Amino acid sequence: MTDRNSAIGVFDSGIGGLTAVKELAKLLPNENIIYLGDTARVPYGSKSRDTIYKYAAQDVKFLQSYNVKMFIAACGTVSSVLADDNDFCDGLYTGVIRPTVDAACNLTKNKKIGVIGTAATIRSRSYERFIKEIIPECEVYSKACPMFVPLVENGYIEKGCIPTEEIAREYLMPLKEAGVDTLILGCTHYPLLCDIISGIMGEGVALISSGGEAGKFAMKVLKEKKLLSDRKDKGRIELYCTDSAELFEENAQHFLNGLDNVTIRSCSLD
Amino acid sequence: MTDRNSAIGVFDSGIGGLTAVKELAKLLPNENIIYLGDTARVPYGSKSRDTIYKYAAQDVKFLQSYNVKMFIAACGTVSSVLADDNDFCDGLYTGVIRPTVDAACNLTKNKKIGVIGTAATIRSRSYERFIKEIIPECEVYSKACPMFVPLVENGYIEKGCIPTEEIAREYLMPLKEAGVDTLILGCTHYPLLCDIISGIMGEGVALISSGGEAGKFAMKVLKEKKLLSDRKDKGRIELYCTDSAELFEENAQHFLNGLDNVTIRSCSLD
Repeated sequence: MTDRNSAIGVFDSGIGGLTAVKELAKLLPNENIIYLGDTARVPYGSKSRDTIYKYAAQDVKFLQSYNVKMFIAACGTVSSVLADDNDFCDGLYTGVIRPTVDAACNLTKNKKIGVIGTAATIRSRSYERFIKEIIPECEVYSKACPMFVPLVENGYIEKGCIPTEEIAREYLMPLKEAGVDTLILGCTHYPLLCDIISGIMGEGVALISSGGEAGKFAMKVLKEKKLLSDRKDKGRIELYCTDSAELFEENAQHFLNGLDNVTIRSCSLD
Repeated sequence: MTDRNSAIGVFDSGIGGLTAVKELAKLLPNENIIYLGDTARVPYGSKSRDTIYKYAAQDVKFLQSYNVKMFIAACGTVSSVLADDNDFCDGLYTGVIRPTVDAACNLTKNKKIGVIGTAATIRSRSYERFIKEIIPECEVYSKACPMFVPLVENGYIEKGCIPTEEIAREYLMPLKEAGVDTLILGCTHYPLLCDIISGIMGEGVALISSGGEAGKFAMKVLKEKKLLSDRKDKGRIELYCTDSAELFEENAQHFLNGLDNVTIRSCSLD
C-alpha cells in the first residue's frame, strides 16, 4: 500500500528530468525517489503525440509497480501531451506545466511571457492554454528549440560556446524583441543553458525552470495530503534507465553533479 | 516466394537511409523498394550495442514480412553493430561497412583513412577492423560526431552555417592534421554536410558516402545472383515509419528531394 514512506516516482524520456530530482532531493532530503529515464527511446520531443502518449503510459506502469506515492512527469514533452489528463495515473500526479505556469503568472509584470520547449511541447500549445486560464489577456510568445537537447547532451553548455550562442540567439531574439519579462524553460534540459539564455535575454527577464517548479509543487501537494515521509535517514535515489546503465552514467554527468546516495540500474518496459 | 521482381528492403533508424534509397533509385529505376525508418525510436547512434541489436532484429522482421529479395542496413550504426553477423537475416544482406571500406581502400594512396560516425559506430571499431583486413598497414583515424545528426535533421547544412562549421572544425581538424587522403562518411546523414566537410578537409581528400556505396554494392550483388528485376515500368518506393507519416514527411524534406513515385505510411513493430 502507498503510504507516507513510499517513494516519489519521477519519469522522463532520458536524463533531463534529473533537474527535478535534484530540486526534490534538496527540498526533501529524507524522501526516497525512484526515477525512470526511457533512454532506449529518447528523445520524445521530436516525436508525435500518439507515440509520446503510448511511451508515457508504459513509463507510468513501471513506476506503479514500485507503488510510488506520487508521479511526476519531469519532462516538458510528456507534460504537454498529457496536459489536463488527470486520469492518466492511478494516484497523485503532476507534470511540469501547471507548476511552471503558476510561477510565471506570479512573476510577470508586463503580462508578456515567453515559452521555449521541444517541437512536441510547442506544437501542443499546452503552456499557452494554461497561462490564458490564469491571465486571459497575457501575450504568450512560443518558440521550439529542437537543437537545445542535443547541445546540452553533448556538453555545449558553457557561456561563450559559439554553436550554442549562435543557435540560442536565433531562437531567442524574437522573444526578446517581443519584450517578454518572464521566460519559461519548458524542457528540463534547458536549465543547463541558463547562463547562455540569460546572457541573451538580459538580466531583466526572469527564467523559470520547469523541473525545479515541479519539485516545489510536489512538495506542497505531499504536505497538504500529509504524505511527507517521517524518515530520519537520508532518502535513497534509485535511477532506472531503459538502455545501459553505464551509458546513462556517462551521458548524465552534468545532471548528476551534486546528487549523492544514488544507484543506477537498467530495466525493461516490455 | 522471393524472386527477381520482389522488392529490395532498406532499413534505418530514421531518415538518413534515404541517401541509399536515392542511390538505388538512380541506379535501378525499375526496382520496387520498401524502406523502414524506425522514427519512433530514432536515433540509434547514441544507444548501446544490445539495444541497437534488438531494434535491428525487429526492423528485419518487418521487412521479411514483405518478402524482400535483399536487406540493406542503410544505417552506419546498425551496420557497425551487426558487422560480420551474416546469419542475422534470412536472405541476402548488406550493411554499409563492407562496400564503403572497399571503396575507401581502393581510393587511398597514402594509406591514411579517416572514419566519422555516430558514437555507437566509432565505439564498435568495425570500420577500422574491416579496413585492416584489406590493408593491414593502413593508419585509421576515427572520430565520433554526435552533433552531426541533429544538425542535419534541423537543417543546419548550408556552407557558412556558423554552428555546423564550428562543430565540424572541432571534429575534423584532428583527421585533417593526421593527413588522411580519404574520409569515410560512416553515417547516412553525413552526405548532406558534404560541402561543409570538404571545405574543411580540402579538395585533396576524397569523401565516401556510406549510403551511396551500399546502393552500388547491392546492385552488384543482385546482378551476380540474377535477381535484378525485369520490370519495364518505373519501380514503386514505399516508405514506412514507426512514428507518424506526416512528421516523417516534414522531417525528411531534405532527404526526399529528387525522389518520386513515393508513398509514406506509418507502421508498428510490436
